[in-house]
Amino acid sequence: MSIFLFTDFGAADIYVGQVKAVLAREAPAVAIIDLLHEAPAFNVRACAHLLAALASQIPAGSVTLAVVDPGVGSARDAVALDIDGRWFVGPDNGLMSVLAARAAKTSVWRITWKPENLGPSFHGRDLFAPIAAALACGGFPTGKAVRVDRLQVEFGATDLGEIIYVDHYGNAYTGLRAHALPRDTRVIAGGASLAYARVFSAVSPGGTFWYANSLGLVEIAGNGCSAAAALRLAVGQPAAYSA
Amino acid sequence: MSIFLFTDFGAADIYVGQVKAVLAREAPAVAIIDLLHEAPAFNVRACAHLLAALASQIPAGSVTLAVVDPGVGSARDAVALDIDGRWFVGPDNGLMSVLAARAAKTSVWRITWKPENLGPSFHGRDLFAPIAAALACGGFPTGKAVRVDRLQVEFGATDLGEIIYVDHYGNAYTGLRAHALPRDTRVIAGGASLAYARVFSAVSPGGTFWYANSLGLVEIAGNGCSAAAALRLAVGQPAAYSA
Amino acid sequence: MSIFLFTDFGAADIYVGQVKAVLAREAPAVAIIDLLHEAPAFNVRACAHLLAALASQIPAGSVTLAVVDPGVGSARDAVALDIDGRWFVGPDNGLMSVLAARAAKTSVWRITWKPENLGPSFHGRDLFAPIAAALACGGFPTGKAVRVDRLQVEFGATDLGEIIYVDHYGNAYTGLRAHALPRDTRVIAGGASLAYARVFSAVSPGGTFWYANSLGLVEIAGNGCSAAAALRLAVGQPAAYSA
Repeated sequence: MSIFLFTDFGAADIYVGQVKAVLAREAPAVAIIDLLHEAPAFNVRACAHLLAALASQIPAGSVTLAVVDPGVGSARDAVALDIDGRWFVGPDNGLMSVLAARAAKTSVWRITWKPENLGPSFHGRDLFAPIAAALACGGFPTGKAVRVDRLQVEFGATDLGEIIYVDHYGNAYTGLRAHALPRDTRVIAGGASLAYARVFSAVSPGGTFWYANSLGLVEIAGNGCSAAAALRLAVGQPAAYSA
Repeated sequence: MSIFLFTDFGAADIYVGQVKAVLAREAPAVAIIDLLHEAPAFNVRACAHLLAALASQIPAGSVTLAVVDPGVGSARDAVALDIDGRWFVGPDNGLMSVLAARAAKTSVWRITWKPENLGPSFHGRDLFAPIAAALACGGFPTGKAVRVDRLQVEFGATDLGEIIYVDHYGNAYTGLRAHALPRDTRVIAGGASLAYARVFSAVSPGGTFWYANSLGLVEIAGNGCSAAAALRLAVGQPAAYSA
Repeated sequence: MSIFLFTDFGAADIYVGQVKAVLAREAPAVAIIDLLHEAPAFNVRACAHLLAALASQIPAGSVTLAVVDPGVGSARDAVALDIDGRWFVGPDNGLMSVLAARAAKTSVWRITWKPENLGPSFHGRDLFAPIAAALACGGFPTGKAVRVDRLQVEFGATDLGEIIYVDHYGNAYTGLRAHALPRDTRVIAGGASLAYARVFSAVSPGGTFWYANSLGLVEIAGNGCSAAAALRLAVGQPAAYSA
């Protein structure tokens, strides 16, 4: 059993350790795996598409704490979802909705429990982590959640024609799934029209291209250079393809 | 049992892994939790106040390796402290002194042990980690430390009217504790006078405010923006409040 | 038993977690230790010298996943090496060759196994991680590798007169080993000639110097300042010493 973490808390910042302290206390035998703590803050829709792609790496039987939550402390709900045999816990702000919409089977519980000392600003630590720990320990937190029909905020299942993530090499992920695209497709982003290449080393050094990345997304990349710097790409910019 | 790490070694750098290699060898069954590796280097006083606040998240029975140590290799002592039933191991340069001064009960041991191959520059790996591992395994390292009356460097228990940490969202922590402050208090920093808000979403987008953060400190924050960038805040700058 | 990770995947990025998800699935009882995920991307030779020095911290009986692989998806081989009783798994692009050349005893296996769904761009996750997990579980992956005489790419055992790493304090590691150098040696880099000091606190604040760092390398450092900023040092620049 593992708990996966997907957040915008910052990999170098002071927040992840506090969440892990709670998980270690409440679920000491459970392994914790940091999937990403640099999900694009303030852009929940981009994060939702990134999580939907990354979830291909999350095994059945696991629990994922998914928190990108600029509205923390407001009236948005907290939810736990069973998505094809995997638990996801986080805010009901659309973050898990793309994954849910693409799944074979999703069940939704609204979390009704409020911890005694719940502060307004760090539900990841105070609310979501204890729920995730309880799920990871195998017991559904009865009395702390009620089954509901659906999420409050839903972004739908369709692809997103935007840059959703830029990695530290400067490669830009789009919210477009690559598997059905012919290899003569051109991808348009940042004012450039990019041809397909299978892999970095198939392009001359400094060249930019698109390829089907390891999560199945259309990615705009450069061989030995930063495509994001070369093409001035950032999260939220439009990306499209032409047949 | 867990070992918590609080350092300025850098979350992305080459140092934390070497410490963990020692801990894995000397205390293989003990969980390790990274609280923070981006404590403000070169500003031990700010780090001391940050650690004092963060320690609210450190449970009884645990061991914390606390190393912000610009004077490594100089004559400063190494110490192990029992602070309200939790061990803290690190340099005697004031880092643990604010926490100790606010505690109900603190006992201080000066570490007299010198490992055979102790280099001058990485006591976190060579000296503090083995001591922390020994404590985490339940045996006090008899013969490696002597009980002393007090720390050599003490910053005292009172609040610090400065910015002590800036997180990756651009929120600025002060060394001022928030719990007793009336909500009509104004906080002064970076030339601005800030009003209270309960939480981010209570402020209009782009607005700055202060609130009582999840560690109980006065924090200067922005809704969907970086308060540090907007107000040009950095660690070490003065922060105050007016009744 | 531990698996150590040495990569250029980025400590804050989306890749390490995917590798760990594979390791958790294939070798759930094995501890994982992040040595470094910010190895200098695109500079395999510098990384090879850094790994050779860092390997002093890697114990016998362990497995290290070492991936800096700008040629992923090209024709380069994948290898598993037994170097003085420790396994290293990664690309045959020179990365492990400095360590191997300095070792007492190295055995080389070329990995012939191709996982069913091997993509072109993330062999760290799809190919190297399963092999590392199998080795960590104690079974050599018979049928997945063949013994060969030597590596395809070898950088040799001699020191490298270049900056090979810059840490977050701004200290610059060279590829020069320090143990045999007299203390009146001067180190030349970035147009400056630097004198030796034993440790940071032996130099006046803001001063730069060289010393024998905690990995045994000549390091150019500053007391309370960034030597890399002061001397404009970056990975790949020449560094030398004068007797």
